[in-house]
Parts: sequence; structure tokens; C-alpha cells
Amino acid sequence: MDLLRNPFKGVVADVKGRASWYKDDWVAGFRTGFRILAPTMYMFFASALPVIAFGEQLSNETNGILSTVETLASTAICGIIHSFLGGQPLLIVGVAEPTIIMYTYLYNYAKKQPGLGERLYLAWAGWVCIWTAIMLFLLAMINASNVISRFTRVAGELFGMLITVLFLQQAIKGIVSEFSKPLEFEIADRTSPIYQFQWVYVNGLLGVIFSIGLLYTALKTRRARSWLYGIGWLRGFIADYGVPLMVVVWTAFSYALPSHVPSGVPRRLYSPLPWESISLGHWTVAKDLFSVPPAYIFAAIVPALMVAGLYFFDHSVASQLAQQKEFNLKKPSAYHYDILVLGFMVLLCGLLGIPPSNGVLPQSPMHTRSLAVLRGQFLRKKMLQTAKEGMVKSASSLEIYGKMQEVFIQMDSIQNADFVDKDLKSLKDAVLREGDGEGKLAGEFDPRKHIEAHLPVRVNEQRLSNLLQSLLVGCCVGAMPVIKMIPTSVLWGYFAYMAIDSLPGNQFWERIRLLFVGASRRYKVFEGPHASFVESVPSRTISVFTIFQIVYLLICFGTTWIPIAGILFPLPFFLMILIRQHVLPKFFEPNDLRELDAAEYEELEGVHLEDTLQEDNCSIPGSCDSRNEAEILDELTTNRGEVKHRSVIHREERHLQVHSNAVQPRV
Amino acid sequence: MDLLRNPFKGVVADVKGRASWYKDDWVAGFRTGFRILAPTMYMFFASALPVIAFGEQLSNETNGILSTVETLASTAICGIIHSFLGGQPLLIVGVAEPTIIMYTYLYNYAKKQPGLGERLYLAWAGWVCIWTAIMLFLLAMINASNVISRFTRVAGELFGMLITVLFLQQAIKGIVSEFSKPLEFEIADRTSPIYQFQWVYVNGLLGVIFSIGLLYTALKTRRARSWLYGIGWLRGFIADYGVPLMVVVWTAFSYALPSHVPSGVPRRLYSPLPWESISLGHWTVAKDLFSVPPAYIFAAIVPALMVAGLYFFDHSVASQLAQQKEFNLKKPSAYHYDILVLGFMVLLCGLLGIPPSNGVLPQSPMHTRSLAVLRGQFLRKKMLQTAKEGMVKSASSLEIYGKMQEVFIQMDSIQNADFVDKDLKSLKDAVLREGDGEGKLAGEFDPRKHIEAHLPVRVNEQRLSNLLQSLLVGCCVGAMPVIKMIPTSVLWGYFAYMAIDSLPGNQFWERIRLLFVGASRRYKVFEGPHASFVESVPSRTISVFTIFQIVYLLICFGTTWIPIAGILFPLPFFLMILIRQHVLPKFFEPNDLRELDAAEYEELEGVHLEDTLQEDNCSIPGSCDSRNEAEILDELTTNRGEVKHRSVIHREERHLQVHSNAVQPRV
Repeated sequence: MDLLRNPFKGVVADVKGRASWYKDDWVAGFRTGFRILAPTMYMFFASALPVIAFGEQLSNETNGILSTVETLASTAICGIIHSFLGGQPLLIVGVAEPTIIMYTYLYNYAKKQPGLGERLYLAWAGWVCIWTAIMLFLLAMINASNVISRFTRVAGELFGMLITVLFLQQAIKGIVSEFSKPLEFEIADRTSPIYQFQWVYVNGLLGVIFSIGLLYTALKTRRARSWLYGIGWLRGFIADYGVPLMVVVWTAFSYALPSHVPSGVPRRLYSPLPWESISLGHWTVAKDLFSVPPAYIFAAIVPALMVAGLYFFDHSVASQLAQQKEFNLKKPSAYHYDILVLGFMVLLCGLLGIPPSNGVLPQSPMHTRSLAVLRGQFLRKKMLQTAKEGMVKSASSLEIYGKMQEVFIQMDSIQNADFVDKDLKSLKDAVLREGDGEGKLAGEFDPRKHIEAHLPVRVNEQRLSNLLQSLLVGCCVGAMPVIKMIPTSVLWGYFAYMAIDSLPGNQFWERIRLLFVGASRRYKVFEGPHASFVESVPSRTISVFTIFQIVYLLICFGTTWIPIAGILFPLPFFLMILIRQHVLPKFFEPNDLRELDAAEYEELEGVHLEDTLQEDNCSIPGSCDSRNEAEILDELTTNRGEVKHRSVIHREERHLQVHSNAVQPRV
Repeated sequence: MDLLRNPFKGVVADVKGRASWYKDDWVAGFRTGFRILAPTMYMFFASALPVIAFGEQLSNETNGILSTVETLASTAICGIIHSFLGGQPLLIVGVAEPTIIMYTYLYNYAKKQPGLGERLYLAWAGWVCIWTAIMLFLLAMINASNVISRFTRVAGELFGMLITVLFLQQAIKGIVSEFSKPLEFEIADRTSPIYQFQWVYVNGLLGVIFSIGLLYTALKTRRARSWLYGIGWLRGFIADYGVPLMVVVWTAFSYALPSHVPSGVPRRLYSPLPWESISLGHWTVAKDLFSVPPAYIFAAIVPALMVAGLYFFDHSVASQLAQQKEFNLKKPSAYHYDILVLGFMVLLCGLLGIPPSNGVLPQSPMHTRSLAVLRGQFLRKKMLQTAKEGMVKSASSLEIYGKMQEVFIQMDSIQNADFVDKDLKSLKDAVLREGDGEGKLAGEFDPRKHIEAHLPVRVNEQRLSNLLQSLLVGCCVGAMPVIKMIPTSVLWGYFAYMAIDSLPGNQFWERIRLLFVGASRRYKVFEGPHASFVESVPSRTISVFTIFQIVYLLICFGTTWIPIAGILFPLPFFLMILIRQHVLPKFFEPNDLRELDAAEYEELEGVHLEDTLQEDNCSIPGSCDSRNEAEILDELTTNRGEVKHRSVIHREERHLQVHSNAVQPRV
């Protein structure tokens, strides 16, 4: 095989590429000074919260054997290792939902096997990790990361939607569980009032209030940055820290209940403290490894195949998204090498008896973006101004670009011509395309839009923020007595939040929504910014493609419900990559497929209504008319019933009018 | 006094004006056929729901003496009378919040008076109604409605905000009351489990869920017409009937509780059935009138003064808004005469021992608007087309207007040149203003916007829809056993809905929000449609004016809390009309005051960002920059972390690009 000819070629190249930057990775971090704390804190909360929630899910599923302590510990340990040894320090690692699902299957299988049982569950899972690590080493050796370009949008979004559905399922399961009696391992005393129907019911109702309350407020704060009201820094703070803040607020709320409500209502996160004797078993699992019967040791290869496949995919996609070309990263990637490091981390976690971590979405690109926020704004402003000046002087497009480049070089700290050219290439193309043959700009050239669309972002590439956030996650293990105060229902709400928050920007989801937009309402989609496929692919093709994806998603989701074979749930998903490669091209036009499975998220500006109105197909008179009329009247009337005068007059004219009215008498 | 010189002059003129249309009022209604049922049903639900909610509020406040049966009966009886005898059949009457507040004060006063007590409460309230009726007759006689032009926006919006605050207060009071033991008159058996703490608490939690659930879903459905998804008629149906639908849905939900929950949890609307013996006292209150001690008969003049003032104001403003000039009504108004009719209705209600009805907002203009929906759309479409054809031929503005007028006359059913001129006047002005001296149109002339802004709306002016909806409200009295199934908490949620739904379009509220928009965010206000005062009045003046209004609102609200003198709560509000007339002009520029207190709701189209960007005052570098950068990055990133490519390319170009890509290999 071709892949075997150059073993470790990729890994070696990655190591060489990164080694020369290693010192700079730290220097750049420390040079940032205290400002590094902003992205650190941001990433800490973004990492820690889901891991806490996953821990509670795992605890419910594994009868308390694994819980939040273990997921936090794994995230912290792997994060620290990765920030020191990883090739791509922008990548964030953590325990993710697929790991939780896998460990649940492993538990359900192990507890029913006479040769394993609950006692040897972790040891057997350790063997799965060992096999997984071996497979990841092999993947690194054969340079498997060369194929990650085949992990196209279709596969990524299918996986994303599957996780979304699983999150939603967990949110619903969680809330429903609040209405049933507490699990045995959580409360020993069966005579406690919290086993009485009315208190269980109160617990359930509080669960509904807390989870929906968290969901609603978290979704609201997420968009705080574009609020119209409030002070800039406050909006930014709420947008960045709103979700953890809301967890704190709702937790505080849960302590404000009347004193008649017995303790234990509402239920709170269950996790034995890491220093309690019950937890000690985890850390010494390595000594039990050879108590596992040999047959099971080899049976562990099956789940290991799935885990290795999942991790390889997830880790690579997270790395890709953290290093998109739009971020203009200066330092090289290290896909091959990082798979090797991942293998090492999985091995370590297996031996420690904790679930392993891998590269996570959306935290990894969030990390890059949070580091990009630290630079570049002045630059943009200056370039915009230059372009405008050029336009006033009716300069040609080439001249304008030249001026903009000048400003860029002048203001940029890294003085390197190669980088400048690379950074500005897409802007250059865009500006020059606007000009005609003689370099004259078209009338409607809008420098603001171009600079924004082709913004040369700069990212502070370093290892310090990753290390610090991992250390903070590690501190959470010590802070378990505080974390245990969170009501479980708040965490179920957080699952729903994660599900809903992951939807916008997933083109699969956007196409599902498009299925419900009638032909007569299409123009509304065109009015706002919209993904480019909406315009370039026939709507019938979009529908067929989307329905195929929905059916496929249902198959994937259905697989997770199969009792023991459910452990193979990643299989249909792996299959999708092959289907995309070999089957889909037979049913769809190559252009359409390319648009629907585009490597990049391409978006078009909204067009003005006038452009589409003429194409508005109103062949059925009743349907279109009733829509327009009632809607226009709605829009033109205030809630009190006043009819608005909508005016299109410009300000100066308006001003004149006001003053000319001034002499007229008033009715 | 000048007013006394021509007694009943206004009433006589109104009667003459309406008499010639009376037959047509009915003929037009019946000619509409079954289509009249659409506005009828719409208005029925819009009338009945608040009246049901007010009934529950009144029942809580008057220890069950008055309840939903009485408020429904009053609304139905007065509605039927008004639709036959009223001068302005578009006006909707009903029991409104000020009446409930007044009746609460009357109850609280009466029950403490040894000469009255609960037994003579209704008889004494009957005397208040008698005095009120006399005062309304006097107001009609002295042609008082001539002064309604002094009821400017400032007064109307102050009153609207006061009602909003009272609604919110009721919603909160209601939800809090769900956490305390039920009122005595509702449940006789004190040993019922619903008096136990845990069931009271369950009732409270269910109350929170039901009220917030209703509030959220009702607010969502309200905007259904502009949803992107779903079929046109369904969206329209949800927008029109979503709120009553949600009351039904949440009521159904309240019956889906586990069987362990005792009956009585959640609490439901309390109202003795009208045919039960306990209700008989109401209908025979007239015989008790002279049991009221004479001193109290005369004391009733004080509250009657307040009620008469309130009703005169509310009835007139509701009539005004139902007959705004934008609706292009053909039939005359009848302010004076309708005050006379109102007096008669108040008298009747007083003698029947039920709270009286008056003209209500926002139902009255909603009624007119719902009748306007039945006509005019085809017309608009045709006119738009004509205007576009004219533009293609580069016709002058006068020619274009001529063509549009032609189409209008041709398609309009009422062939009357006077009406046509009146209808089209504002459109004509707008079109001609766009042209220059020679009648050439400016390049950016947009016929669509003009036709929409100066839409010649046609209203089906008739009495049938008002009569039918009143009859339906009357049927509700018989349907009390069904209405009693509504949980009280759903009604508290409905109060919150009414409060929040009344806010948009209230310029006072919009200015309060503006106080919280920082100077650097002002451009966002200009981007969307915005009230014209935002541009024409200095922002400092807006702020000072708004803060004055807030302080005044707090004074008005504070007055309602004063124990017995609270009955004078309309006083500060009446005072406001005088302050507007005589005090405010001393502190504000006449032009500013005219804009802030404009008779009409004038709105300006949003301007494009480019226009405002240059004016963007970013003297403090940090503040503006941090805002823009993080916000732009947020906007340019999907939730999964993908960076979007935002493109401004036009469709054709884009299409070419896709196809030229097709030959390139894919990475």
C-alpha cells in the first residue's frame, strides 16, 4: 500500500515544522501579559461547563461509577499534556459526548458479562483505550491524516446533527428523570421525604422551571454583543460569560426556595469527592488490567475500532476548524503528529480509569477566534479610511489596493512580505474584480463590505492560554464541593442549550428549515444574508438532498438505540464518508454537490426587495394577496392600533418639512 | 360659557350625519355575506379574553361578589346596544382595566363603611353609575367632545403605560397569589389537601409554568404572519387566533397532570354560574338603591367624577383611533352622540349591578383594521404595475400619477370623484414631490414604497360584525362551565401578555428604550425603521422629556397605591392634559414638543450604514473598536466555529464563478 511506503513521514514533517516555533509559542504567550487572561477565562468556562454536564450524564448512565470528577480530571490532564506536547496548541481537548455514549455502551455491556461485571468495567474500558491508542499510533504511522480532506461538510454536519439530537435526547431524558424517584446510588435513606410523590413532583416542576429558565436566559445572553442597549464592555462580558453566569444565577435561585421544601429538592449534581475512599478505585485501575479474562481483552478491539475512528475524525475536524485559512495562521499545522499525541493521551486515561479526551467542537475554533479578538481593529479602520479617500479621488482599483496594502504593511508588526501577500490575497482579488478592464471601479464599490469580508485577521498563536485554561479545569476537581451545588435540572437545560446553540451555521439544519419555507416566501431568504447554495442550486435538488440527509440521520440515531450492537453506532456515519465519495456523485450534478458540500461556509449579502419582487410568482391570486395585505397592515400598525406614517424622505428634507409645518395651525 | 350656548349642537349634528348611513350600515354588513365571520371571530376573541381575565381579577378583589359572568354580561349587553344605537359602529366597547380598578376601590371603601358593607356595595356602585351617566349626559350636552384634540399623544401614552404597569402588577400579584392558600370564598372545605403546604407549592410552581408558558407562546404566535415558515393561511390563522389558541392549549395541558395531584390544583377561574341563586342579587340591585343612606348617595359623586372623566377620555381616544384618517373612512364620526349613548349604557349597567363598559383599546382600531383586510390588495398590485410601466417609459411624475389614478377609479367600487381625490391625496403629494420642477422623477423613485406608505385602504364600514361579536360574547355567559376550566395562572400570564404586547408602538416606551442606547450604538436605531422624532429632536431633549414622563408615570402609579384617596388616581392623569397645554411649552421648543407629541405616528425608513458610518463619533478608541471587532467576528463565525465567506457578488456573476470552478480540482 502507498500509505505504508513512508511510515511516520507526516509525523516527522509535523515535528520539524512545529519545533522551530516551539519557543515562540511560549514567548508569544508570555509577551501578551495579563491580556492572555481574557481568552483563558473565556475558554475555561467554555470547556468546563460541558464537561461538568457530561459528567452528570455519565454518572446517571454508569450508576455513579464515573462522574464529573473523572471527566474534569481527564480534560485537565489531557489539556495540560496537549498544551505542552501537542502540535497544534490552538486545539482544545476535552471529554466529548461521543466518549460518554461509548462509555455508556461499555458499561451496559460489561455489567451483564459474568466475566466482567461492574468491578472490572473500568479495567475493560482500559483495554479499549489501549487498543484505541495502538490504532491511533498506526494511523499516525501510515500518514492517515492525508485523507482528512474527505471529511467533507456532509460528514461533519451529519455528525454535528447527531450530537445535537443526542443532546436534546439527554435534556428530555434528564427532565423526565426529575419526575421519578432519585436513583439509588444518590440517596441512601429510602425514608427521606424526597421519595414521597408530592416532593418528587415538586422536584420535577422545579426541574422544568430551572432547565427552561437556563435554556432561555443562556440563549438570550449569547447574543448580547449585538444588543442595542447597555454599555459596550458589559454587552461583551455578558456575551462571553453569560452562560456560566446563568448557571450561577439559576443555582443561586435554587437556594432561595421556601424553607418548608426538604433538602434534596431540587436534586443536585452527584459526584463523590475525588479524595473520598470510593473514588480511589479509579486511580488504581491499572493493577486490575490483567484480571480481565483474555477473551474480553480481545473483544475490546471492536469498540476500540469505533473509538479510534471517531477520535481520528473528531480530532482532525476540530484541528481543521481551529486552523481555517481565514484565521491567517502563521505557524504550521500538525495533524499527523497530533494523532500520535492523542494516542498517548488515550492510553494514559485508560490506565487511570478515566474517560479519554479528544479535540472538541466548537471550543477549538472559539479558542482561535478569542485570540484573534486581541488584534487588528485599528488596522481595519485605517484601511477603510484609505480606501474611502482613494474613492473620493476616483483612483483606480489598483491604486486603491496599493494604498491599502501600504497601510497594512506599515501597521503590521510582523514585517514579512510573503505574509503580507498571503494575507491580502483575497482582498486584492476582490478589489480588482470590482474594477473594469481599465481598473476603474464600478459605481457601487463599497470598501467597507470588502474589507470586512476579506478581513486580514491576526491570531495570537501561543500555548499559554491552552495551558492556563486546562489548569483551571484541573482546579475544578478541587472545587467539586462548590460544583456539586448545581441542580441537575440546570445541567439538563444546559444540554438543551448546547443542542440549540449548535444549530445556526449548520447548513444541514439551514436546509431543513428551508424545506418549510413556501415558494412564495423564498424572497425573504434572499433578503437577508444567506448561504450561497440557496441561489446556485435548484430548490428541488436542495430538497432531495436534504431529505436524503434527514433519512440518513434517522438511521444513525436509530442505531444508537440498538441494545448491544448500538456500540457500532459510528459505523453508518463512517459509511457516509464512502457514500459521499462514491454514491452521491451518481445522483447529483457535480456542481450542485460541490455547492451543497462546500468546504467553506459561503454566504451572500441580502438583495433588496425590488430585485425579487418582479420574479415573485403569484399565479394563485388568493395565496399571495392575503399574505401581503395583512402583513403590510400589521407592519404599518402599532400594537395600540395607530397607523404609522412611513416616510422615505431624507433627513434634510424632513427637517425642512418640520419647520414649514411649524407655522400651520394644529388640529 | 361658550360651551353652553348651543346645547346638544354636536349631538344633533352627529345624529344627522349618521342617520343617512344607518340603513347602509346594515346593508353593507349583510352584503359581505359569510366573509363577515372572519373579522367577527377575530374581534370576538380579542374582546372576550381580556374581559374574562378582568373578571377573575375583579373576583379576587371583591371577594367574589363580581366575577367573569358580570364582566362578560356587561360587555355583551353594551356591545349589542352600541352596535344598534351607537354612532360609530367601528368602536368596540367592553369592560376595561380602569373600570376594574375603580370597582375595586369602591368595594374596599364600601365594605368598611357601617352604612354600606358588602351588602350595599353594588347598590352604592349603582349610584356612582347614575351620577356618572348624568355627567356624561352633561358632557354630551355642552359639546365637550370638541376638546378631544387636546388629548394628545402625551396623555394617551401616559395612560397606556399606566395600564401596562397595572397589568404587569396584576400578573405578578396573580402568580404570587398562586403560592398562598386559596381564598376562602373559592373553596369551602378547609380540610382539602390543597391547603397543605406541598400542594400549595405545587400549585404555585404550576402557576409559574402556565403563566410564563402562555406569555411566551402568545407573544410568539402574535408575530406568526411574518414567520418565514409554514403556509400562508396557517400563519395568518396563528397570528389572528394564536392567543386564544394558546389559552386552550395551556388549559388542556393543565388537565394532563398525573392523577395523584388532587383536584383543585392548579386553581381554576372562580365564578358562580349566572343561573345559580348566589348570582341573583346582581340582577335585582335596583330595588336596593334607596336602601343606601343619603350621605353615601351624595358621596358617590366623587368617584363618579373620576369615572366620567376616565370614560370620556377613553371612549373618545378609542373612537379616534378606530377612525384614523389613514383608514379613509367614508362615513362620519359621532363623538358627541356616542358620549350620550355611553351615558345610557353606564346607567343601565349600574341598575343591573354589573360594571359598565366603554370604548376599548386596542380592540377598536383592530376592528377597523380587520375590516380593511377584506379589500384593496388587487388594487394596490395593479397600481404598482402601472407605476412601473410608467417609469420604464420615463414618464413624468404627473403622468404616472394620472395613470395610477385611472386604475384606482376603474377598480374602485364606489364611483365618486370626491372620494377618489381625498383617497389619493397623500399619494399624489408624495409622487409629485419626488419629481423636480419639470415633473421628471428622481432616479431612485420607488413606486412600491410610495404606494405602500400612502396606501388607499378601504374599510367595510358596517354594524354587523360588532353586533355578532357582542352576541358571541353574550354566549360566553352561557358557556361559563367551559370557561371555568381555564387555570387562573393562564390568566395571569395573559395579563403579562397584554402588558408586553401593548408596548411596541408606544413612543413613550420607545423613548425609554432609547435612554439605554449608548451614543455609539445610535446608528443601529437609524438602520431600521424608526420614529421620526429620533432624527428631528436633539437627543438631550428627548432624554429630558422622557425622564419627565417616567417621573410623572411613577407619580400616577404611586397614587393608585394610596388606600382610600387612591380612588382619585385619574386626577394626576387629567392634570397632565393641562400641564401639556400650559406648562410644557415653557420648557421645550415648540418644534420639539410637536415632534415628541405628534398627532400621528410618523416613521422613517432605515438608512444604510454607509451614510452614518462617517458620522460615527469614535473619539475614545477603545470603546468603538472593541465593539466592532468582536461583533464582526461573531457575525462572521457560525456557532460551530466556521468562518463564513461573505460575498457581495451578484447572482449572475456568482453563477459564472461556480461553473468556472467546476473544472478546477478540489482540495
